[in-house]
Amino acid sequence: MEAAPRTSNEKAGVTPLLTFSILSSFLKIHDKMKAAAMTLKKLAVDDPRRVRHSLKVGLTLTVISVFYYVKALYSGLGQSTMWAVLTVVVVTEYTAGATLYKGLNRVIATLLAGALGLGAHRLAALAGNDGKSVLLGVFVFLLAAMVTFSRFVPEIKARYDYGATIFILTFSLVSVSGYRVEELIGLAHHRLSTVAIGVAACMATSIAIFPVWAGEELHNLVASNLDTLASFLEGVGKEYFEQKLESHKNLEGASFLIGYKSVLNSKAMEDSLANFARWEPGHGQFGFRHPWKQYLKIGALARQCACSMQSLNGFISATEKSEALTNSEFQQNIKTACAVMCSESGKALAELASAIRDMRPPTAAAGHLGNAATVGSQVKMMGPSETTTVEEVLLYATMANLLLEIVHGAKHVADAVVQLANMAKFKHAEEAKSGVAKHNGDGESLHVVIDTKLLFNYLSFDHPLNQQGGVLHNTK
Amino acid sequence: MEAAPRTSNEKAGVTPLLTFSILSSFLKIHDKMKAAAMTLKKLAVDDPRRVRHSLKVGLTLTVISVFYYVKALYSGLGQSTMWAVLTVVVVTEYTAGATLYKGLNRVIATLLAGALGLGAHRLAALAGNDGKSVLLGVFVFLLAAMVTFSRFVPEIKARYDYGATIFILTFSLVSVSGYRVEELIGLAHHRLSTVAIGVAACMATSIAIFPVWAGEELHNLVASNLDTLASFLEGVGKEYFEQKLESHKNLEGASFLIGYKSVLNSKAMEDSLANFARWEPGHGQFGFRHPWKQYLKIGALARQCACSMQSLNGFISATEKSEALTNSEFQQNIKTACAVMCSESGKALAELASAIRDMRPPTAAAGHLGNAATVGSQVKMMGPSETTTVEEVLLYATMANLLLEIVHGAKHVADAVVQLANMAKFKHAEEAKSGVAKHNGDGESLHVVIDTKLLFNYLSFDHPLNQQGGVLHNTK
Repeated sequence: MEAAPRTSNEKAGVTPLLTFSILSSFLKIHDKMKAAAMTLKKLAVDDPRRVRHSLKVGLTLTVISVFYYVKALYSGLGQSTMWAVLTVVVVTEYTAGATLYKGLNRVIATLLAGALGLGAHRLAALAGNDGKSVLLGVFVFLLAAMVTFSRFVPEIKARYDYGATIFILTFSLVSVSGYRVEELIGLAHHRLSTVAIGVAACMATSIAIFPVWAGEELHNLVASNLDTLASFLEGVGKEYFEQKLESHKNLEGASFLIGYKSVLNSKAMEDSLANFARWEPGHGQFGFRHPWKQYLKIGALARQCACSMQSLNGFISATEKSEALTNSEFQQNIKTACAVMCSESGKALAELASAIRDMRPPTAAAGHLGNAATVGSQVKMMGPSETTTVEEVLLYATMANLLLEIVHGAKHVADAVVQLANMAKFKHAEEAKSGVAKHNGDGESLHVVIDTKLLFNYLSFDHPLNQQGGVLHNTK
Repeated sequence: MEAAPRTSNEKAGVTPLLTFSILSSFLKIHDKMKAAAMTLKKLAVDDPRRVRHSLKVGLTLTVISVFYYVKALYSGLGQSTMWAVLTVVVVTEYTAGATLYKGLNRVIATLLAGALGLGAHRLAALAGNDGKSVLLGVFVFLLAAMVTFSRFVPEIKARYDYGATIFILTFSLVSVSGYRVEELIGLAHHRLSTVAIGVAACMATSIAIFPVWAGEELHNLVASNLDTLASFLEGVGKEYFEQKLESHKNLEGASFLIGYKSVLNSKAMEDSLANFARWEPGHGQFGFRHPWKQYLKIGALARQCACSMQSLNGFISATEKSEALTNSEFQQNIKTACAVMCSESGKALAELASAIRDMRPPTAAAGHLGNAATVGSQVKMMGPSETTTVEEVLLYATMANLLLEIVHGAKHVADAVVQLANMAKFKHAEEAKSGVAKHNGDGESLHVVIDTKLLFNYLSFDHPLNQQGGVLHNTK
């Protein structure tokens, strides 16, 4: 919608002030609509599956509605339309897993509660006409309270929350409806079949037409989180630790520096995807019993690494603001070692991410982590040189130690990924396992030798401190 | 349920193996039921409001059902029962805010979509009997696809997700139902009033009878998270930094050491509570426009502190395993400083938590944080002594620096809490603001003097390194 009266407003007989205020509110509305359109466009471009999903929902609903509309015209009953439409609208979710979770919960809960409701009816009928409604009221109260309370149990909340709601709903509807039992059975049968058809339509659409699998989303999310961590490490290594103090660019706001934040916030998403993934049938390379829980373990370990990265990031900004730092030998040594640790653990995490994506064991990760650990253990032997300030020692020591913690964390992630490869029987899983156990042997050792050599070249390892067994002496 | 055949199984004529297997399966069932009962009991004891909520749901549902049951008996229509029961079951949530969110979304979406559906009917009728169902199908498709897509917009997802679902549902139901427009208006009116009564019943119950306010939950959650962080710091200060190396207890699994994990995982809960809190009317000390978003800010800053605590925790376990550590003077100095930083920042966080709980400005927090920062800046001047190993220097430097980062983080939390106190007009908010600005003046200065003195007694500040301007020299 274009803001039409933008030009030629002088010709109108209104005061300039009024013209201006009308103009500016038109422009404001125009800007807001433009912003909204941009938001929508971005949502569509970022993930075209969202558009497809919306069209799918529209299509399923239209087909079901029109089918029942035509049927209702002939049979004269509008009721079944309602249940079918209601089911489709309420059950359809973005991922196939969520749709299956809701659909199966709905059908099973409707079936169970319907049967129980009929039983309650028969039981209450024994109490005669007067006692019947009282007894039914008591049943509804007890069942609703009990099932509502059961929803506080975490396992039930995670798997059967929707089913619990539908269970209460159906039981109440059946037991309190004013119909006789004979009528009820026919009605229940009719309704259940309508609900089942609605659910089947949703499930078929969500599985057969451009399915979005919760399991695959989880798989990709975990892999891309590891990639995010890898690019943090690689970025910090190249842009910070490999630079001299004076040639530091201002890293504030660099995208690789803040990526860890999205990793820290991904727990809720991972949990819900893992919950839904359990309901999905085997698809593509994922079996029905694919170890989805293991992804949550990897995710938790990744967040632990991200935490250390957040701390490291804080210290990087601190060194950028500090004026007490010099280009001392000690600083250069630590930074060189840190650069190697960053690059090696970054490579390891990137390899883990790509191994998850390709569903193969992460063969090269252990070697990189071995290199990083070797360099890390060298850091413990480094001593400050003459020109170093205490603040500098503390700051760089902290960064090196945090990186070591990140390397340890990445090792845990690697172990969890190897475990995943074994559990999900990724190709060559056995070889990967043995590869981890002897990461200093065979093909892997090449890495270690080369990189340690590289490091020895960078660092002056004939430093007197190292020859004195790593004990610091001050000039007392 | 007791496992009855536990005794006297020898007398029976069955083989011992069969007896044993029956017995053991009975015992297993017994154990499982016992465990389930314990879980339920724990849920009830931990928060008795869960039981109350369940009873409330049962009661509301029974009252509405029986009311409509009786009405249906007289009018002969079972339909209204259904809508009222359905509304109550689907709308009632644990917190008042969530119930209001769903209830208002439901009523408004039903109203809007109903009107739009009638309009669509009239419009489609212009196309004649043949074109009508085609046009209606097209309308349903377009609207369902558009509204479904709009649910991907984060703001709509957060505030109007349920409304969007109900909007699609009602629009489809109205436009595809086989009724004529005249019938529809009466029906729509009837249904809307039933839904409105159901929603009103839920809202009244959730607000009037033992309400659980999402806002209050958020308020308490944020305060208790700060308490958790405070007890981490106080615990680490007392049980670790104040202890000599040889008298370290094994801290593994100590509850104060792992509390930060729950803080790290609280984001999803905080977000959802803040979303629901916005729908709640003023209650107790919370106004309708209470700044709920500020709690999210405090929560995010608290998680940042928790991240640093996770790193610190890693290094504490590392020192407990390391054999390279000695009881050097350097170590004792750093540990004493760390103990003061822990205790002061712990006190500050505890004060912040209690200030939030009491809804008063956090007057004492700034003083404690000032003390912690003063001691922290002394750490930068400390140098290693002769007996210190490099590993020891690096390890303790790292811990001290992480603690400094925690102190900085706590300062940000304190600022955010002061901001909250101003925004929500906690009592004496003006005084609190000026208190932060000049935390070294007036009543606060006492703290600083006392604690710095204490520290100077602990530490040997005549250490030669400190007299040499903090520059380290090694015996080159």
